[in-house]
Amino acid sequence: MSIADTTMHAIDHGGGGPPEVLRLTEMPRPVPGERDLLIEVHYAGVNRPDVLQRSGKYPPPSDASPVMGLEVAGRVVAVGASVTGWSVGDAVCSLAPGGGYAEFCVVPAEHALPVPEGLTLREAACLPETFMTVWANVFMRAQARSGESILIHGGASGIGSAAIQLARVFGLGPVYVTCGDARKQDYCRTLGATEAINYRQEDFAERIRALTGGGGVDIVLDMVGAPYFQRNLDCCAADGRIAQIAFQQGARAELNLQGLMMKRLTWTGSTLRARSRAHKAGIAAELRTRVWPRFSENPNALRPHIHAEFPLAAAAEAHRMMEAGEHVGKIVLRVR
Amino acid sequence: MSIADTTMHAIDHGGGGPPEVLRLTEMPRPVPGERDLLIEVHYAGVNRPDVLQRSGKYPPPSDASPVMGLEVAGRVVAVGASVTGWSVGDAVCSLAPGGGYAEFCVVPAEHALPVPEGLTLREAACLPETFMTVWANVFMRAQARSGESILIHGGASGIGSAAIQLARVFGLGPVYVTCGDARKQDYCRTLGATEAINYRQEDFAERIRALTGGGGVDIVLDMVGAPYFQRNLDCCAADGRIAQIAFQQGARAELNLQGLMMKRLTWTGSTLRARSRAHKAGIAAELRTRVWPRFSENPNALRPHIHAEFPLAAAAEAHRMMEAGEHVGKIVLRVR
Repeated sequence: MSIADTTMHAIDHGGGGPPEVLRLTEMPRPVPGERDLLIEVHYAGVNRPDVLQRSGKYPPPSDASPVMGLEVAGRVVAVGASVTGWSVGDAVCSLAPGGGYAEFCVVPAEHALPVPEGLTLREAACLPETFMTVWANVFMRAQARSGESILIHGGASGIGSAAIQLARVFGLGPVYVTCGDARKQDYCRTLGATEAINYRQEDFAERIRALTGGGGVDIVLDMVGAPYFQRNLDCCAADGRIAQIAFQQGARAELNLQGLMMKRLTWTGSTLRARSRAHKAGIAAELRTRVWPRFSENPNALRPHIHAEFPLAAAAEAHRMMEAGEHVGKIVLRVR
Repeated sequence: MSIADTTMHAIDHGGGGPPEVLRLTEMPRPVPGERDLLIEVHYAGVNRPDVLQRSGKYPPPSDASPVMGLEVAGRVVAVGASVTGWSVGDAVCSLAPGGGYAEFCVVPAEHALPVPEGLTLREAACLPETFMTVWANVFMRAQARSGESILIHGGASGIGSAAIQLARVFGLGPVYVTCGDARKQDYCRTLGATEAINYRQEDFAERIRALTGGGGVDIVLDMVGAPYFQRNLDCCAADGRIAQIAFQQGARAELNLQGLMMKRLTWTGSTLRARSRAHKAGIAAELRTRVWPRFSENPNALRPHIHAEFPLAAAAEAHRMMEAGEHVGKIVLRVR
């Protein structure tokens, strides 16, 4: 093996800090274990946890790559000895335990999925983290069912966009979202939102009550946190469920929980990265059987919207864009 | 039908107030609908919601009897036209929509259950409200499973006692409880609690962490509310569930919800009285098939402990005792 075959370019964030700390560097190429795949990364999705990791607020698990990046798409270039179902050369997209901002990335084979029919590698790189997060929280934990209504906060984000599309394809409705300006409202409606509420202009809970004749929504997907807690509880219907996937504006608030019991709500949540390898494999297996066939059946309804693409070396630009919060849909890094 | 056959004695609480407002009065005997049973009440269980209803804090549903009383045992004296499976003369215990503090009580036939083998009518009158509440919340909503640990607040109460016994019989463990004095601690251990924590003497969350090596409990059953919210969250294990069945000390608190997401907790709850007739029927059906056979299999492990019995006319005494909070187990009214 030549030197060139044992090294690669990747983004290093050093000791953490603002986007400026990111720099392209050379480092050893990772070596797959016997149950892993080595992927030659063509595109890597950018996600909010990456930004938190860069700033030092969200250290990676001790057994994960120190390099950022939770989802990739590319080609399989090496297959662990005990892996079945994958061959060198296969097109692949995968959740990554870390290490996605790099030319090569090791992933557990059971977290990898084929590139859905009709999608490019660029689009497929935007699926794993968002689709697994939405599926695990909205459909598995909160048990969203066809015919139920849903309120999706951050509707124009990568997570929000995936949630709108999955809700529509799986028969939920009405699909209400919140977002912060008219352009994002239009974008969310284009994706399939029944109604997009500008949270800067009106109280979303009052609007939900008005839209539902006081009845409320069955499901709430929230990543905002503290300032939304009480209103999420207040605008749930009887037997409603709240899925909490982040606390972007804090986790501490004074609350009145009366409604939790009187309306028989269920408030739960989870983070994807902390789950076990086996649990993530279970989510991926559900995506493969229940969601992946829907891509060809619904070619327009289920397709990630990519707001911007940056070369790997410009990862700092991608992070600045995500932190500015002006994007709609996904931000992706072109690695190859 | 003579006059005597159309009237009965029952407890009237007038416009509500302290226990003194309760008085035995004569009123029309209720008439069963075609899907109902009329029960000649021998014993009626006393529950905390009765006390709230008496004080005016918990008005009954508009279609329920204005008379207090949510559980009774006695004999079937009339059977609605479309009811099958019940005959006049049958021994019966039942959840009641209200009206239990009376010589006769109408109940939906599908909420009635046979008197479990080996139990007296006096004991059977103590089962429906507590067993249905614990079953619906701990086993149905919070999905408690054999092998899981549980923390039961108010361990010496009627609900707490039923929860300890059901947890034991269905293989949960360790079973931790909180209560307020040494006598109640002894009582809870006698019922099967692994450890009874005196909440006046120590912080229950710290004690749970010590008892579980920091791991926490899988299930929490809480009726205390606000002052316990944060500690309930803090002492839950990963994937733990909190079932909230009352807010005896309030529903409002400042909380840090970080653990809800990071530990993937599920916080839910419900009140029994507000459920639909059909839903209560579903709970009763589960009790009949899954719990009732356990009474003969576990004659000592599953038997309500009756702290005190009062004649119907002394209902005020029963309420004073419940409000004093010194009792362990159930308080029952002897009606016949």
